[in-house]
Amino acid sequence: MKLYDMKQAPNPRRLRMFLAEKGIEIETVQVDIPSGENLSDEFKAINPRGLLPTLVLDDGTVIDESVAISRYFEQTHPEPNLMGTDAKSMALIESAERHMEFDGLLSVAEAFRNSNPVFANRATQGTDGVQAIEALVERGRNGTARFFASLDATLAGSRYVAGDTFSIADITAFCVVDFAKWTGMRLGDEHPNAQRWYAEVSARPSAQA
Amino acid sequence: MKLYDMKQAPNPRRLRMFLAEKGIEIETVQVDIPSGENLSDEFKAINPRGLLPTLVLDDGTVIDESVAISRYFEQTHPEPNLMGTDAKSMALIESAERHMEFDGLLSVAEAFRNSNPVFANRATQGTDGVQAIEALVERGRNGTARFFASLDATLAGSRYVAGDTFSIADITAFCVVDFAKWTGMRLGDEHPNAQRWYAEVSARPSAQA
Repeated sequence: MKLYDMKQAPNPRRLRMFLAEKGIEIETVQVDIPSGENLSDEFKAINPRGLLPTLVLDDGTVIDESVAISRYFEQTHPEPNLMGTDAKSMALIESAERHMEFDGLLSVAEAFRNSNPVFANRATQGTDGVQAIEALVERGRNGTARFFASLDATLAGSRYVAGDTFSIADITAFCVVDFAKWTGMRLGDEHPNAQRWYAEVSARPSAQA
Repeated sequence: MKLYDMKQAPNPRRLRMFLAEKGIEIETVQVDIPSGENLSDEFKAINPRGLLPTLVLDDGTVIDESVAISRYFEQTHPEPNLMGTDAKSMALIESAERHMEFDGLLSVAEAFRNSNPVFANRATQGTDGVQAIEALVERGRNGTARFFASLDATLAGSRYVAGDTFSIADITAFCVVDFAKWTGMRLGDEHPNAQRWYAEVSARPSAQA
């Protein structure tokens, strides 16, 4: 089993945190996104979408998408549970995880990719060669600000993003908050609940993964 | 149990197809997105994100996101299986489903929302009041064209989107192809494999749900 990874990027980090929580160690291969190594013929022969993380099983099966790879390990290593234990908790965690992705990660990525010259002709991830659009920087920053407010509101009512239990939704949210720093945006004094939660998640060993 | 639904919209349709495949019937309440009923105080009291579909369980629990609600019913009604039966098939189906969403649905939605005057100040779904950006129409259409090509390539190698078995990934892909018609984009003669698959999925009773 081999994991194609990039130490700095948010989606591979989500998976590494998930694996660290479960105590799973896998051989990793670093692929450098800024220099375009993920778009090389060599890597596209493994994953034609050019995305990280990508897992290759011993039988050659290729699985991409951080959440899908996490699902694989949730099944093979059920403890500690990170994706729910019954129909209701599984659905609520998946819903919360998707809020973090669609409301948070997409906004931060939009602000970051459309403002960083390195990604001027890679404004969406992967192989598509999409040109940056300046208006999306502000749109992404506004979305990030709304995400921070929404995250704070969620965490006013519960210890973790999807309720009383740490889950994959916290992992995604935590990686999004750190990713937002790349655009100069941080949780502020107006987000006391998110700050409390961020300090707690930061103290977990998996935050260093 | 009550499902907030809109007959014409792609995300509620994905869930209705999923439920139809499993033979599940639920009380539904129609919420009209074009007129903004999903953004009313009444509906936001149920789902603050203003998104459909939204499921309310008998105990009052609210679950949104089509895939998360599908997960709930996959657990309560395992047959026919639509989300995988073991670690590998679950991960591969989830990965393929996400390809359909991130590569397909987001592109079509971008082209549609940014070109339709009804959504001029609702260019992303939900409550955010995002203004349309003209450059995103072309970006979305280009993404849709790449999605069609990629879908055709996938279906050159397998009967269904995630292999030999019909799954939630086919449901998402099918609803995306139909949603693309709203932007005037259709599968063409250059997509024979996707056309074969589309004809097959269209013949399933769930396609009428």
